[in-house]
Amino acid sequence: MSRVFSGIQPTGEPHIGNYFGAMQNYVKLGQDYGKNSIYCVVDLHALTNPNAFDPALLAQRTLDMAVANFAVGLDPAQVTFFVQSQVPEHQELSWVLTNITPVGELERMTQYKDKAGQLESVPAGLLMYPVLMAADILLYKADTVPVGEDQTQHIELTREIARKFNHTFGETFPEPRAVNNKQALRIPGVDGHGKMSKSKGEQSTIGLFEPLDSIWAKLRVAPTDPARVRRTDPGDPDVCLVGDYHKLFSDDQTLRTVYDGCRSAGIGCVDCKKLLMTGIEEHLSPIQARGEALRADLDSVRDALAQGTREARAIAAPVMEEVRSKVGFLRP
Amino acid sequence: MSRVFSGIQPTGEPHIGNYFGAMQNYVKLGQDYGKNSIYCVVDLHALTNPNAFDPALLAQRTLDMAVANFAVGLDPAQVTFFVQSQVPEHQELSWVLTNITPVGELERMTQYKDKAGQLESVPAGLLMYPVLMAADILLYKADTVPVGEDQTQHIELTREIARKFNHTFGETFPEPRAVNNKQALRIPGVDGHGKMSKSKGEQSTIGLFEPLDSIWAKLRVAPTDPARVRRTDPGDPDVCLVGDYHKLFSDDQTLRTVYDGCRSAGIGCVDCKKLLMTGIEEHLSPIQARGEALRADLDSVRDALAQGTREARAIAAPVMEEVRSKVGFLRP
Repeated sequence: MSRVFSGIQPTGEPHIGNYFGAMQNYVKLGQDYGKNSIYCVVDLHALTNPNAFDPALLAQRTLDMAVANFAVGLDPAQVTFFVQSQVPEHQELSWVLTNITPVGELERMTQYKDKAGQLESVPAGLLMYPVLMAADILLYKADTVPVGEDQTQHIELTREIARKFNHTFGETFPEPRAVNNKQALRIPGVDGHGKMSKSKGEQSTIGLFEPLDSIWAKLRVAPTDPARVRRTDPGDPDVCLVGDYHKLFSDDQTLRTVYDGCRSAGIGCVDCKKLLMTGIEEHLSPIQARGEALRADLDSVRDALAQGTREARAIAAPVMEEVRSKVGFLRP
Repeated sequence: MSRVFSGIQPTGEPHIGNYFGAMQNYVKLGQDYGKNSIYCVVDLHALTNPNAFDPALLAQRTLDMAVANFAVGLDPAQVTFFVQSQVPEHQELSWVLTNITPVGELERMTQYKDKAGQLESVPAGLLMYPVLMAADILLYKADTVPVGEDQTQHIELTREIARKFNHTFGETFPEPRAVNNKQALRIPGVDGHGKMSKSKGEQSTIGLFEPLDSIWAKLRVAPTDPARVRRTDPGDPDVCLVGDYHKLFSDDQTLRTVYDGCRSAGIGCVDCKKLLMTGIEEHLSPIQARGEALRADLDSVRDALAQGTREARAIAAPVMEEVRSKVGFLRP
């Protein structure tokens, strides 16, 4: 039996980069794997980033991330969706794995070196992040992990940890493989400055729940192909972020219209952006409506998370029991 | 309200160095603090020592350590006595504290540097040991921690972690103080080679449950004051391990007899050792009898540990709930 695990950072409102990069993929995997697709809002991981972590916002951001994923079509009745801190087996397994993971391996992680290099005092949580991530995955004996490319090294370490555990304590965990969310890193920011990213501020992102007039205000001034100076100049839609967005939001016919029109100077950039806006509206309006409905009934969201916790623990508790037994802890 | 916490390593059969260094002190503190003296067999910490850890022995050693402490007079009905791995709040709090503890502080710990220096590959658990130890103590808001001198630095770090938590999330934890088990490091090994220590092998130790004839076999050949070559030479009982042991096991009258007799050559070393053996027998026989009775009724030991787990969690769960709330985790 195959099982998918993915951790979702409670980073606040997701943008369309998150949507096309990961969330759509979750919905698809949820349809394929059902209750064996396990999604976890990783609030314990959120603590490892001292610059972004805010105790006053954590609970709200956790809830927001559940709302967002449910709004785009992830059905908590169909998949397993829960909050990490509500399943204490994550930390229990993490401690066991900490003892079979070499410090040197953790120090070599690229993401650790990048993030630690930006901090005056490095919290140990940043170093231990990949061990907790390995525990997240192995606790459910997941074999498939959809992640961005920046997490590939952590998945490789998870495989090493699984091998080490199996070798030391007997065959227990499958070695999970990473399934890259390929589009995750390719969606350009609406300000034209590289990849869309929350860390670059709101001018970079189109929020999944952003009001349409606010989206239009950003899109209206978004840079297009710089070679197209006058309306009569032909443009290249493949070097234009509006062209890139059309690939995500527009149907085939519209895509042909704007690509041909741009190359022949038959359509101006403003009209091209208006056609894009129609596609965005068609995509985001139903998501935004579902989000609004969920936010108006947060009790049902909390109930779904409570049910998700029960489902997650129903898998995690026997695995942790197996681990306890193999490590040799005294049985209660 | 004052509260004592102490962690007991499940290292197998304790020796008389452990007894006079720590266990007797636990009994005394138990009489003073009652249920607010909290003793925990730290099986989670046992994982951090890859050279000593053995999954096949862990459960037995954990149970042995409970039996030993109950046998010397620690009454589980009077104190709180439990096994660490049965209270998952230890790992939960540990993860939170990991995120406010700088890696650099952990790397500076003397014990870490000593132990890591002896290993080819250093498991991360060795580095994180003091964070779990801080969680052990703070989870019970303990203010008093009886420890050997080798743990003083870890208690100082625990105080720093408590300050950091209180500063970041609001006043929560008292800063615990170390109460040194002063005799812990001073009991000489029966082979005459420095401090009594399990790591030096059985020839160094007198086990608390060692058969008396086995103890006598070691004592009979134990070195005495090297200046006393012939029976007629006067000796110095203060530079003699037999003299040291008399201070622990013999009553005042016997102590005077052997000290005066040694200095005046009025008593030979063999007779001096026989008098010591009488004191050892008086001390250890009732402990060994209680140990035997407990081992004949392990179900009652397990029941006592289960009750201890309930008592520990009754303190730990609300503290962890307070931590969760202050750190900002979404409430279930």
